Amino acid sequence: MIDLEDVYGGKRALVTGGLGFIGSNLARRLAELSARVTVIDALLPEQGGNYFNLEGTASRIDIREGDIGELVGVEGLLEGKDFVFNLAAMTSHVGSVENPLMDLGMNCRSHLQFLEVLREVNRDCVMLYTGSRSQYGMAEYLPADEEHPFDPVDINGVHMTTVEMYHKLYSEIYGMPCVRLRITNVYGPRHLMSHSKQGFIHWFIRVALSGGEIKVFGDGTQQRDFIYVGDCVEAILQTAAEEMCHGKVLNVGSGVPVSVLDCARAIAEKTGASYRLVPFPDQYLNVETGDLYLDVSRIKELTGWEPAVGFCEGLDMTIEFYRRHWDKYWQRQDPAA
Amino acid sequence: MIDLEDVYGGKRALVTGGLGFIGSNLARRLAELSARVTVIDALLPEQGGNYFNLEGTASRIDIREGDIGELVGVEGLLEGKDFVFNLAAMTSHVGSVENPLMDLGMNCRSHLQFLEVLREVNRDCVMLYTGSRSQYGMAEYLPADEEHPFDPVDINGVHMTTVEMYHKLYSEIYGMPCVRLRITNVYGPRHLMSHSKQGFIHWFIRVALSGGEIKVFGDGTQQRDFIYVGDCVEAILQTAAEEMCHGKVLNVGSGVPVSVLDCARAIAEKTGASYRLVPFPDQYLNVETGDLYLDVSRIKELTGWEPAVGFCEGLDMTIEFYRRHWDKYWQRQDPAA
Repeated sequence: MIDLEDVYGGKRALVTGGLGFIGSNLARRLAELSARVTVIDALLPEQGGNYFNLEGTASRIDIREGDIGELVGVEGLLEGKDFVFNLAAMTSHVGSVENPLMDLGMNCRSHLQFLEVLREVNRDCVMLYTGSRSQYGMAEYLPADEEHPFDPVDINGVHMTTVEMYHKLYSEIYGMPCVRLRITNVYGPRHLMSHSKQGFIHWFIRVALSGGEIKVFGDGTQQRDFIYVGDCVEAILQTAAEEMCHGKVLNVGSGVPVSVLDCARAIAEKTGASYRLVPFPDQYLNVETGDLYLDVSRIKELTGWEPAVGFCEGLDMTIEFYRRHWDKYWQRQDPAA
Repeated sequence: MIDLEDVYGGKRALVTGGLGFIGSNLARRLAELSARVTVIDALLPEQGGNYFNLEGTASRIDIREGDIGELVGVEGLLEGKDFVFNLAAMTSHVGSVENPLMDLGMNCRSHLQFLEVLREVNRDCVMLYTGSRSQYGMAEYLPADEEHPFDPVDINGVHMTTVEMYHKLYSEIYGMPCVRLRITNVYGPRHLMSHSKQGFIHWFIRVALSGGEIKVFGDGTQQRDFIYVGDCVEAILQTAAEEMCHGKVLNVGSGVPVSVLDCARAIAEKTGASYRLVPFPDQYLNVETGDLYLDVSRIKELTGWEPAVGFCEGLDMTIEFYRRHWDKYWQRQDPAA
């Protein structure tokens, strides 16, 4: 594996969505590697941007608030950057079906405008886009590799696919080095906890820590691929640093299937909470993808990266983080819905 | 094959983009089949909408001017329709790279808004979307079948893919019967002739009829799949009528490769014009896809449809049409660029 301190030390890096879940973990790690880090975040309601995520880094990370497609002065922020990590996104599957036009604006329009500026002012940076397993939809085969066809089951998955295609095109047309990742279910510290629309694992943890009962939709046998956010950040940094990844699309996940029920059980066990099975609510039926876990052999071969944190250890660190900081992520310690 | 008069006679059909090339040919055919036809067209500059395309049909076709995403009263036009043929699109590959945000607005935003209205007011109609071969990009194998991965080489191809995915999703989420087509190079009467940004074949014809010299980019060996617009219209009507096509995506083309040079030669021969090879201009290099022709076995199997008009016969009818009506499609009979 590449020595990340050699690559990123002293380099200028921009992280869009940098107050959000993966973005803030990435920005913190870049600062730790002595990069000069700027983050942009629109702080959209219910999207996970949170100043507490970068607490304690104020002297080392420059924070700019705004939509990447509209921020005044974004040209200046892009000039001279060595790396642009493009993580800004609206990521609610249910929300995208309820309000598809907002999802279009915040995902497609903002990214397209941002890329138009980037190709004007800085074609030499390495850019990286974080797409999602949701681009594959219901798996035709498992584990899903990067050749699996696109078949998203909700508008957000469609737009993630569209934005990934933008990055590919801009890379090809304007000769800009670009890595495209498709990331599976990421969990860990600094995820939003205020609602349940962005995946179930953090919601299970919130419910458990609030003294509630974890509700598992359906029979809980759907298998997912969970990766700890620290491992995801290392994957981002390794692939952006590795020239053989430029121009490519790579899955990022653990590759290890875990059922939703096993996930609920593990959280219940670690927190003393209880869980039970309930029927799928209608609005989730539409966005449910069934079993999905990824073939991650490509990233392993090209970079030597592999996940370092097992599911049990990762859950422990995650639960410990929210036990200490729950008040920065939700309002009251009452039993949640 | 299904008897189209039985299916469409007396039925209420809406054609978006109905003053454009394929849309107007479809609307005329529907009227001929005794359907009650409404068309909507935004008449965007340089996009091919032309009142002359529906000349002589005024008493049988109701024409509404407006963007499908913004037209006041579009709900009323959608209510009670039996068939909605969704052909509205900006289709310039070069233009989409020059102005990607406009392409996003006119293709993705308008269609998404339109589908939101449609699912509110009329989930029972059969809807049909006309995508494009450009969604496949550079062919990985030939002929390209419907399983060929999406890999568009320009922003317009990305957005055609996005809008196709919208139609699939709305069909699945809201239970609306929907046919998705991917159509190859269509030629024939009623195409715009005012500029060369929407494919070369009509531009060759205009140049030839204006006394100019046809310029073939590159060595002209790239192979394409040409289909006469009348055959394309029959494919649209057969697939919308055939329930086995609902929920499916189908290629529409002749399946027969013809080189660009052979196309130029045929037009030159029929018109007395000359042609020569010139280097590719920069802005076309970016959107050039190389050889591309389609596997059309799926539509043939499901409907019995196949192209009835050969390339030579189709060219004759096309040239004859523009000889008679050139002044409705371009300004002056001077040699064109």
